Amino acid sequence: MQSLSKVAIIGGGVIGGGWVARFLLNGIDVALYDPAPDALAKVTGLIENAERAYDELLGVNRPLTGNLSLAADIESAVRGADFIQESAPENLSLKRSILAEIDRFAPHQTLICSSTSGLRPTELQKGLSHPDRFMVGHPFNPVYLLPLVEICGGEQTSADSKSRAAEIYQSLGMKPLVLAKEIDAFIADRLLEAYWREALWLVKDGIATVEEIDDAIRYGAGLRWAMMGTFQVYRIAGGEAGMQHFLSQFGPSLKWPWTKLMEVPELDGDFIKLIARQSDDQAGELSIKELEQIRDTGLVGILKVLQKMDWGAGQVLGDYEAMLKAAKPASELDLRKPLPLFQTNIKSDWIDYNGHMTEHRYLQLFGETTDALLTYIGMDAAYLATGQSVYTLETHLRHLKEVAQGERVSVTTQLLGLDSKRVRLLHVMTLDRNEEVLATTEQMLMHVDTKAGRGSDFSAGLAASLSQIWTAHQNLQVPDFTGSGIRALTG
Amino acid sequence: MQSLSKVAIIGGGVIGGGWVARFLLNGIDVALYDPAPDALAKVTGLIENAERAYDELLGVNRPLTGNLSLAADIESAVRGADFIQESAPENLSLKRSILAEIDRFAPHQTLICSSTSGLRPTELQKGLSHPDRFMVGHPFNPVYLLPLVEICGGEQTSADSKSRAAEIYQSLGMKPLVLAKEIDAFIADRLLEAYWREALWLVKDGIATVEEIDDAIRYGAGLRWAMMGTFQVYRIAGGEAGMQHFLSQFGPSLKWPWTKLMEVPELDGDFIKLIARQSDDQAGELSIKELEQIRDTGLVGILKVLQKMDWGAGQVLGDYEAMLKAAKPASELDLRKPLPLFQTNIKSDWIDYNGHMTEHRYLQLFGETTDALLTYIGMDAAYLATGQSVYTLETHLRHLKEVAQGERVSVTTQLLGLDSKRVRLLHVMTLDRNEEVLATTEQMLMHVDTKAGRGSDFSAGLAASLSQIWTAHQNLQVPDFTGSGIRALTG
Repeated sequence: MQSLSKVAIIGGGVIGGGWVARFLLNGIDVALYDPAPDALAKVTGLIENAERAYDELLGVNRPLTGNLSLAADIESAVRGADFIQESAPENLSLKRSILAEIDRFAPHQTLICSSTSGLRPTELQKGLSHPDRFMVGHPFNPVYLLPLVEICGGEQTSADSKSRAAEIYQSLGMKPLVLAKEIDAFIADRLLEAYWREALWLVKDGIATVEEIDDAIRYGAGLRWAMMGTFQVYRIAGGEAGMQHFLSQFGPSLKWPWTKLMEVPELDGDFIKLIARQSDDQAGELSIKELEQIRDTGLVGILKVLQKMDWGAGQVLGDYEAMLKAAKPASELDLRKPLPLFQTNIKSDWIDYNGHMTEHRYLQLFGETTDALLTYIGMDAAYLATGQSVYTLETHLRHLKEVAQGERVSVTTQLLGLDSKRVRLLHVMTLDRNEEVLATTEQMLMHVDTKAGRGSDFSAGLAASLSQIWTAHQNLQVPDFTGSGIRALTG
Repeated sequence: MQSLSKVAIIGGGVIGGGWVARFLLNGIDVALYDPAPDALAKVTGLIENAERAYDELLGVNRPLTGNLSLAADIESAVRGADFIQESAPENLSLKRSILAEIDRFAPHQTLICSSTSGLRPTELQKGLSHPDRFMVGHPFNPVYLLPLVEICGGEQTSADSKSRAAEIYQSLGMKPLVLAKEIDAFIADRLLEAYWREALWLVKDGIATVEEIDDAIRYGAGLRWAMMGTFQVYRIAGGEAGMQHFLSQFGPSLKWPWTKLMEVPELDGDFIKLIARQSDDQAGELSIKELEQIRDTGLVGILKVLQKMDWGAGQVLGDYEAMLKAAKPASELDLRKPLPLFQTNIKSDWIDYNGHMTEHRYLQLFGETTDALLTYIGMDAAYLATGQSVYTLETHLRHLKEVAQGERVSVTTQLLGLDSKRVRLLHVMTLDRNEEVLATTEQMLMHVDTKAGRGSDFSAGLAASLSQIWTAHQNLQVPDFTGSGIRALTG
């Protein structure tokens, strides 16, 4: 799937533009067709949002961004494309005419996925020359961050097409959910719609404002939904007595007259105005752009929390990062120089009240550089499992320059000494844009028997790798500042 | 509100027990009445969960846990209570008889709140001698972590009672939402019910399994709901065109036949069994206890992410922490000894692949100790706003012992030197349970003019405080290891 080289996106609104960003940031070239005059400007804003989010989100370097081209028509967008995602307005006849054109000019094997949330694939694929490669691939906003994509085939969609699409989406860091049956609105929107109608009734009946209704979710059940759906939540609420017991109890109250099920509120002018006014009050001074960035910052933080737990959407992110890492060719290091082991962007949550990176994050980045060195010399999970590891004994950290959020920094490593158990090294962090030295760290590391809790000799493999580096690094100049302590003050 | 000294909780199930934990962990004594023989065991498990979560969640020390007593009957539970929370089973006549007994024996001014999610307060307060102090205070599971509590008064509830209850809940770190009108199921459960019925239909109709339905939320919209409710989400989706435009477009599709609105699925034996079986499959090997801990770990992480953003539920947490901090008397330090400036529990996300605290987290705790020193000598937000701060120039960190999750550690600080611009100090981290030294850090700090980006003299106030400490600390012994660097290896 890494072999996708050109993708066509038809329609560049909030959803289509989100797709553009996700493909580009995965290193894939995108041809966009959108007849709106401001299509490029809109998509550019979304790509910037996505870049900002990915730089915060990913612990590994993302692929080089793909190239975006604007196509003059559908034909030139889809010719030679490896994959096509259609995100035109929700109108059956419009979508049908667009799909017919895509179908006519795209390579016959190329998958065509529609982002529709409301139209059935069986209806959309009627009349296509190769309907077997058409399906719905329904994403969620923001498309570049939320992993979910619902795959729903129509009567003529082949099983093979669905599994190929699932693989492609997975390679983009997404979670494809392949529907067993074709239904209107698929799964998620069925739930969202039911919720939304109820919310509209609460406003219509003057029970609560839009802000109160939103608060009733985001301070409560919404926090759980980031991790677990309602069935799992209710399983827990049921406790040890089990889901069956819980449901038997729950049964009767389900029929209490709690919801305004039977009607749909009329979205007339006055009602629309009421909601719009309440929504303005709720947003206060915050613009759409600011709300988007708040949303994305939160999503990034939540995804990282879940990744640390290896749970749900965080598991998808972990797999994605591992895939990106594995895709990088393990470059041969030039041992005659300090080793370029680590690079990163400075993330927003590393900044302190002084407006620049806080001190312990320097040590975090130096620690990750040490980990990169250990990985390079052969310390992996299997090695750790033998009860051996490498601990830091001492660190001497010198702060020379501040560094701000979004800057890119690199760390190189020079060996200063080696014996059978210990390695002494120097990490130097520089700012990429001008190669200024930001900080240095001298460290003494010791190989340990983790069960006995004491120093032990490096294994033969690790020792050999380290010797090889040390032999080369003995020829490097050792900076004067190494080896000295923090001086006494005489003032 | 800090003056609550005894609270009565009637009913110790998942909800009542959650209340017990929230009050106890806020330092308030609780008298619990629950006729079940295993009531204490159940509540104890919940308290343990809550303690684990709070130790992870809070950046400040929580109050000393209150005392829990089991009451033999309702009368002894509520006599002399400052606040009463009733969480008995959802049965109108049962609740009415319990409330009558509470009303009879509780002090007449004491608020009585019911956790009911399905019964109207007007119905529940009928026949009480002091119905004005009764209302619904409806929380969400886990009660000790989720901030939301819906306050809904009945026809006889006084406005004053509602605002007193809101204040009490707020003092517990909660977000009270006071309903303008009394309706069945209040706000959140109306939304949750609508969603839940739809979910049941999806299973009943064989469209998706419970796991797929849960996945359709937690990989997508659920991640957003932790931050923003649907109105705010749709505002963003509508983009610059505004909510009014968005709603006008959305209107028609709301009437598409997407949801199974008109009926309620029959929760008969076979259907219950089907859901229970699918729920077992979904949970796999995970016990309820394990699921609870996964949920709580995730909630803690998400709340901390939102706190960092000062957004939604994280804003509530921030206010709560500030309140806890302010409630602590600023103790006078004994300057003749190293200063006991910082204590913490070791949190789970500070642990690395070696199973103990990772190196940069040591520096984080030492950095927080430095911040505590700076606060002590008078560096506050107003001082920072004048364009002055204190930066770290150098750090020499020595790791002596590993430390595991959940351990409690303390850091003391000794001044090693002082001049007009710089202070040299030594932090020592010890394990509380045996006073073993875990790590030491020697640091050189410099007072800076942040606009000019260079060293400058301490202000008179800071200089005076530091001198006072330095005068006393010159009499302390200076450990031998200070001042020296990392030695060269000769191997």
